[in-house]
Amino acid sequence: MLSTHETHCPIAFALNIFGDHWSLLIMRDILFQKKKRYNEFLNSEEKISTNILADRLQRLEANRIIKKKRDTIDGKSFIYSPTDKGLDLLPVLLSIVRWSGKHDAKTGAPASFLRQLEKPMNDIERKIRSEFGARQV
Amino acid sequence: MLSTHETHCPIAFALNIFGDHWSLLIMRDILFQKKKRYNEFLNSEEKISTNILADRLQRLEANRIIKKKRDTIDGKSFIYSPTDKGLDLLPVLLSIVRWSGKHDAKTGAPASFLRQLEKPMNDIERKIRSEFGARQV
Repeated sequence: MLSTHETHCPIAFALNIFGDHWSLLIMRDILFQKKKRYNEFLNSEEKISTNILADRLQRLEANRIIKKKRDTIDGKSFIYSPTDKGLDLLPVLLSIVRWSGKHDAKTGAPASFLRQLEKPMNDIERKIRSEFGARQV
Repeated sequence: MLSTHETHCPIAFALNIFGDHWSLLIMRDILFQKKKRYNEFLNSEEKISTNILADRLQRLEANRIIKKKRDTIDGKSFIYSPTDKGLDLLPVLLSIVRWSGKHDAKTGAPASFLRQLEKPMNDIERKIRSEFGARQV
């Protein structure tokens, strides 16, 4: 895997930072489920292991996607929250939700939520689709 | 990692299928760089290994994101192309490009391309940002 210093392909750059199954599930927990604490992430249904969770939180923090501060109630633990750079991942996650809503017959995303995600196709997408001879839906 | 049968969280469902660094780079090669052949993917600058490439192509095909047919010129090799389900990943990849364009000072994405990706924020994103007290930009 290339370091972010070696490639500035915009896809590879991003995947080097957050293009990891677990990192994106942690961002889901933070952005959509409003989880803030280590134990809350640990208890998500995907059952992340404690060493992977610690590693991914550290990487997300090192890349300034999340920040942490001491919990004022429990001084031994931390509160995690998204930075502006982390909030900018919302369109990425929402586009993933939209894809699953369309392609998973048993999707857990509510229909009303998916309707709010509908949006007109932009010119770039239209152009690429036409190059593959795809329907312009 | 949960199988797609076990979770229908729309983020986890999608990540189980394409939420892998290499799978998304292969989709980049297919959708943006119009690569079609095994050797073309192998020669991308990230230097994917042959066993990972074979595995990911098989998984993408099994999940009906890509399809393959025999090369009519070289009967021993295959031509890969996106299905409609694969083309529906375009908004995901474009949202990743947009994120990198904003957060990688040395991004390889041309400024004119990035301008075409600008779009108004939808209501869901606006609402989530406001919950985090973020600027409504």
